[in-house]
Amino acid sequence: MSNSIKLAILGLGTVGTGVINLINDNLNELKRRSGRDIIITEVGTRRQRDDIDTNIMQNSDLMAIAASDNVDIVIEVIGGTTLAKDVIMQAIKNGKHVVTANKALLAEHGNEIFAFAEENNVHVAYEAAVAGGIPIIKVMREALAANKIDWLAGIINGTGNFIMTEMRDKGRPFADVLSEAQELGYAEADPTFDVEGIDAAHKLALLASIAFGIPLQFDKVYCEGITGITLQDVNYAEELGYRIKHLGFAVRRDSENDGDAGVELRVHPTLIPQDALLANVNGVKNAVLVNSHPLGQTLYCGDGAGAGATASAVMADVMDLVRVLGSKDRDDQSNTGHHVPHLAFIPEQLSDTPILRADQMVTGYYLRVHAYDSPGVLADITRILSDAGINIDAILQKPAHKVGQVPVIILTLPVVESQMNLAIEKIEKLETITDKVVRIRLDELA
Amino acid sequence: MSNSIKLAILGLGTVGTGVINLINDNLNELKRRSGRDIIITEVGTRRQRDDIDTNIMQNSDLMAIAASDNVDIVIEVIGGTTLAKDVIMQAIKNGKHVVTANKALLAEHGNEIFAFAEENNVHVAYEAAVAGGIPIIKVMREALAANKIDWLAGIINGTGNFIMTEMRDKGRPFADVLSEAQELGYAEADPTFDVEGIDAAHKLALLASIAFGIPLQFDKVYCEGITGITLQDVNYAEELGYRIKHLGFAVRRDSENDGDAGVELRVHPTLIPQDALLANVNGVKNAVLVNSHPLGQTLYCGDGAGAGATASAVMADVMDLVRVLGSKDRDDQSNTGHHVPHLAFIPEQLSDTPILRADQMVTGYYLRVHAYDSPGVLADITRILSDAGINIDAILQKPAHKVGQVPVIILTLPVVESQMNLAIEKIEKLETITDKVVRIRLDELA
Repeated sequence: MSNSIKLAILGLGTVGTGVINLINDNLNELKRRSGRDIIITEVGTRRQRDDIDTNIMQNSDLMAIAASDNVDIVIEVIGGTTLAKDVIMQAIKNGKHVVTANKALLAEHGNEIFAFAEENNVHVAYEAAVAGGIPIIKVMREALAANKIDWLAGIINGTGNFIMTEMRDKGRPFADVLSEAQELGYAEADPTFDVEGIDAAHKLALLASIAFGIPLQFDKVYCEGITGITLQDVNYAEELGYRIKHLGFAVRRDSENDGDAGVELRVHPTLIPQDALLANVNGVKNAVLVNSHPLGQTLYCGDGAGAGATASAVMADVMDLVRVLGSKDRDDQSNTGHHVPHLAFIPEQLSDTPILRADQMVTGYYLRVHAYDSPGVLADITRILSDAGINIDAILQKPAHKVGQVPVIILTLPVVESQMNLAIEKIEKLETITDKVVRIRLDELA
Repeated sequence: MSNSIKLAILGLGTVGTGVINLINDNLNELKRRSGRDIIITEVGTRRQRDDIDTNIMQNSDLMAIAASDNVDIVIEVIGGTTLAKDVIMQAIKNGKHVVTANKALLAEHGNEIFAFAEENNVHVAYEAAVAGGIPIIKVMREALAANKIDWLAGIINGTGNFIMTEMRDKGRPFADVLSEAQELGYAEADPTFDVEGIDAAHKLALLASIAFGIPLQFDKVYCEGITGITLQDVNYAEELGYRIKHLGFAVRRDSENDGDAGVELRVHPTLIPQDALLANVNGVKNAVLVNSHPLGQTLYCGDGAGAGATASAVMADVMDLVRVLGSKDRDDQSNTGHHVPHLAFIPEQLSDTPILRADQMVTGYYLRVHAYDSPGVLADITRILSDAGINIDAILQKPAHKVGQVPVIILTLPVVESQMNLAIEKIEKLETITDKVVRIRLDELA
């Protein structure tokens, strides 16, 4: 068994159990592909489990497992950012490679963790941390390695996508669908991380770093959730040929032609064209669209969560590490130089490209303005937009739904947010305007 | 410059020029990611070119380049299966790694080439050979390495997809769209390889091998092109909620429940549900849908051809090989054990799973039957199908388009082809039937 790879799984929740099941189900495939025996030697679990193979040592002391001589690779699937960090740092210190699905931990402490891993000549692999079973980390770090990535747009939170899909398909309001998502187990009892976009922001921070070669900067991600999206806006968007999806965007702005140079990191509801493939990724599915030079647009779609999808990503990382740990012919355990850099670019080449503030960002807009149905109102609004240099792409004036009040829907071409802020401030000061202007970003994905 | 990686590009057509342009455009990204200088030292071209950097040696003797001491990696983009094979074998013999976009060569001679590469401790990388810029080879060999792949379905010929898209969108007949595709440069003057499905069959042979761990068996791929698809069938399919795409399928049949055990390798027009993402991949785009356990379905979509997309895939392979050739810290030039096996599974683990004959394959069917409009005809047809154990999923009887003749459209559930052959033979013998039965395969992609 000197030829075997010894795994420890820390945490036996959905994902940990999924990894055990995958190894049991696909033992033969794993061996046929890697030429090695991949075995679980230890699992970290708070309480003793009687459904685990008796050859596997169960231990509630995760720090001990992370230092065990009987482990080559530590799989961290306990979640959270405290104990998870401690055990990962412990594993690294003890020369173990680490596989983790922990997006929150990496988004917030990844720079420190990756630097410590490099110091100790081990790898921290994290395919499962973003978009579940979709191999977007491998694709961006390796398959697109020769491209200059211009931007990416991703449906990277399955709960949010389920809610947006149901609202559109069934005409059900947000709160209603959220309750169902909670019943189905798609959303947590406290859904804040999902519906406020925080989970998506964690993943976006990771994607942006490997896209552009910048340090992780979760704290600079502009983050807007879906709690404010109404059925009314969902329907107006459809009427205009668009669909509202909750998306994460990482955009590189090289020139100052249309705003300041730097990187936009943003997570927000977005109108995208109905006929874009991304607009047709429904339910809990995730998808990431990457635009790069010279490749152009490529799309990656699949399950973003669940035991099977996450276990697939975790074990793909293990299979990569098996090669790092030496092939069947070799036993060079320290061969880490050949691996892909943690953030796709070699550490000394990470750049300090500035992250743009929200008011510097450039996007199109969907505006819903409520006005008294008086003759000059549309002229007033369009004049304000035009004075601010904002180009209108479409206007939809709906019949009055309250007495004397009409909703006016306006789609604009891309504009710097600070300009839009000023224009909206002026519009809201018009005497004919009855409510706050509702605004949702819009992207043609072109 | 001992830290540099020296490339030779054999062939300066669209792809070779694309690779040169990519390296020029993205020099900084390549360096930032790999930590190495990636330089072209030699190019193989029949006639001297004056638009090539003077530091690059031009040589019409490709065999000499493939043996040159000044080259680490040979990029073969001349195409064809004769000279291309000679130069690749020459490069391998001389210890060079090879990157090729040559699907025909690999589909037909890959077993021999890969074995020779393993003997000589080098790699032959071929991401660009299938689906252009979509990293489907890397995804299946590495990202899905822990999964058991059940089946895959791919739009892997852009010309064919363009023709099918135009026929549906514009209601134009096959011959008409083919002429346009030729004018646009999407199709060759002799379009046989594209429209008869041979190009797709080459790619499918490669995909099937890395999906299931079987040797390349291009000669066993069942191959049907799109030349027989009429507008009439395109429209009936749409009316029934389906869309006709030209797809390559690789399907593993483990049990004998619904036919013989083995692998189906087939390329043919297929009705798939209109709302499947794959049905909405239009124009010259390619896409591959992979169903694996435990991951489930994932989809990969992008440009399947063109200079930029192909160069992206070629250079992704180069970036992988850069790691094999040693990192910036190491200079272990022989470190090949750490690499992914050519056909995803280690050579001694390739299996001899039988490839099923066409009459053993199991698919659903679209049938178009032309009958005299007489009372018992539908009863006769459905009785024949039912006697053969074929389940009908939908029937559409259209108004007569010739005097007294009605087209009847029948969709069936999956059935072994031999059964369908017998049933169709019987249907065609009915006195009320006026023409040959038209049949197109159907797959729910479920």
